[in-house]
Amino acid sequence: MSSKPLIIIKIGGSIGTLADAPAQLSQDIAALSSKYEFIVVHGGASQTTRLSERLGITPKFITSPSGVKSRYTDAEAIKIFTMALRGEINANLVLALQSAGVNAIGLCGIDGKLLEAKQKTVISADGQGRQKIIRDDFTGKVEKVNVELLGSLLSAGYAPVIASLALGENNQPLNTDGDRAAAAIASALHARRLILMTDVDGYFENFPSDLASSLSRADLPDCMKNASGGMKRKLLASGEALDGGVSEVVIGNGTKEKPISSALAGAGTHITKG
Amino acid sequence: MSSKPLIIIKIGGSIGTLADAPAQLSQDIAALSSKYEFIVVHGGASQTTRLSERLGITPKFITSPSGVKSRYTDAEAIKIFTMALRGEINANLVLALQSAGVNAIGLCGIDGKLLEAKQKTVISADGQGRQKIIRDDFTGKVEKVNVELLGSLLSAGYAPVIASLALGENNQPLNTDGDRAAAAIASALHARRLILMTDVDGYFENFPSDLASSLSRADLPDCMKNASGGMKRKLLASGEALDGGVSEVVIGNGTKEKPISSALAGAGTHITKG
Repeated sequence: MSSKPLIIIKIGGSIGTLADAPAQLSQDIAALSSKYEFIVVHGGASQTTRLSERLGITPKFITSPSGVKSRYTDAEAIKIFTMALRGEINANLVLALQSAGVNAIGLCGIDGKLLEAKQKTVISADGQGRQKIIRDDFTGKVEKVNVELLGSLLSAGYAPVIASLALGENNQPLNTDGDRAAAAIASALHARRLILMTDVDGYFENFPSDLASSLSRADLPDCMKNASGGMKRKLLASGEALDGGVSEVVIGNGTKEKPISSALAGAGTHITKG
Repeated sequence: MSSKPLIIIKIGGSIGTLADAPAQLSQDIAALSSKYEFIVVHGGASQTTRLSERLGITPKFITSPSGVKSRYTDAEAIKIFTMALRGEINANLVLALQSAGVNAIGLCGIDGKLLEAKQKTVISADGQGRQKIIRDDFTGKVEKVNVELLGSLLSAGYAPVIASLALGENNQPLNTDGDRAAAAIASALHARRLILMTDVDGYFENFPSDLASSLSRADLPDCMKNASGGMKRKLLASGEALDGGVSEVVIGNGTKEKPISSALAGAGTHITKG
């Protein structure tokens, strides 16, 4: 591998749908490519929902015994997820990077066993005390990253763009959380930095005021109690990355110009082991 | 690169839609993997048409001044083509190969500039003597193959699965013919064999009788006059591969069990320089 520091950039699905964001991000990556190596990771919940609507398919949800509602990725939904991630978001990001002069290569976790995951056991509740094990929820957590494949692509000068679709233990495709997949990749490759790009400026103690510009690992459990939805998952992923050996995680705004340069210059919420 | 002979397998789009064909093909590739290296190439006109229908979009066609009707891949159509190829067919083939024990890696021509193409200039005629240059037909012909990328993936033990979507001179995605893309890849990599898998047993002199079991390069122009549609393009691609240095092209039936073993054992139409 080259001696340039490696940065993992996670791009939120909502950023991919904005007109200028993929180009702005790509130009920033191009401008920084003499100093850093990059891997881009993305999910795509919003595009999956939009494609489902276009195809006339209603997304399904499961309510857990503790009352938490989550997406139910059944056999039909994982096909749409795959189509949206590999066929739409990933392709658009690769084309935006190629246009900016970055030789991007699009992959997802099923390719070359890039991301191996274990399917989650999901239990649903009907609200009347009855519980059911859902066996066809194609959702999982990344447990293994093909470091050799990514290392050889980086040394050859490519910028991998990775969709957070993983390969399950029975070679089934699995929907995995993009932030946590990015954390797993950053940890496995001993990346110096993980930048989680979202559509707000960082973590706010009282949203939308009191942006926390720096946090330590020890602050995260309290912040997670305070945060909700996507931000809670970003804080969880940040902790996993730091525990995995990443020096710094930044949660920053990916919708503005030069979003990576800004994050490197101090914008956003910077989280270190502390 | 390893010393195992390289075989390029082109899989027709209609094969991908059959229930058992991807698994049968994958198992055959797995069984032959100790003797050969494989690259799989595919297009996807039929899945693109089906996805267009599901999305409620009517495919467009252009009629050339000489009266030939062809698909008009406008900006919306190339997005659907990309979604069907990368997000559906390519993913299904990679999963089928992984299930058979082959470490497949899905790519298309935009990834790492794998297939660079030039956009065709298309002229349409309205049948009343008026002609028009169509500038947004995203169709092209492969002119350059990234041999280094494919070579390094093969040496590392991966089986590349390539969708025939290419990168244009302005970093635009281009629809390219899968048979001819496979021929360009086979030529660039000096593959020993190109096997064009279709849903009939080979080239017939009087379809469906008189299967030609062997042809030479010099026979192809006459065969092309006799053939139509998909078979005409396969014969054109066969000629391009032989001219590019490939030793043998086989046109064979990909819908049967052990289709590659059968082709290697003599089934189908075998075409050599002669």
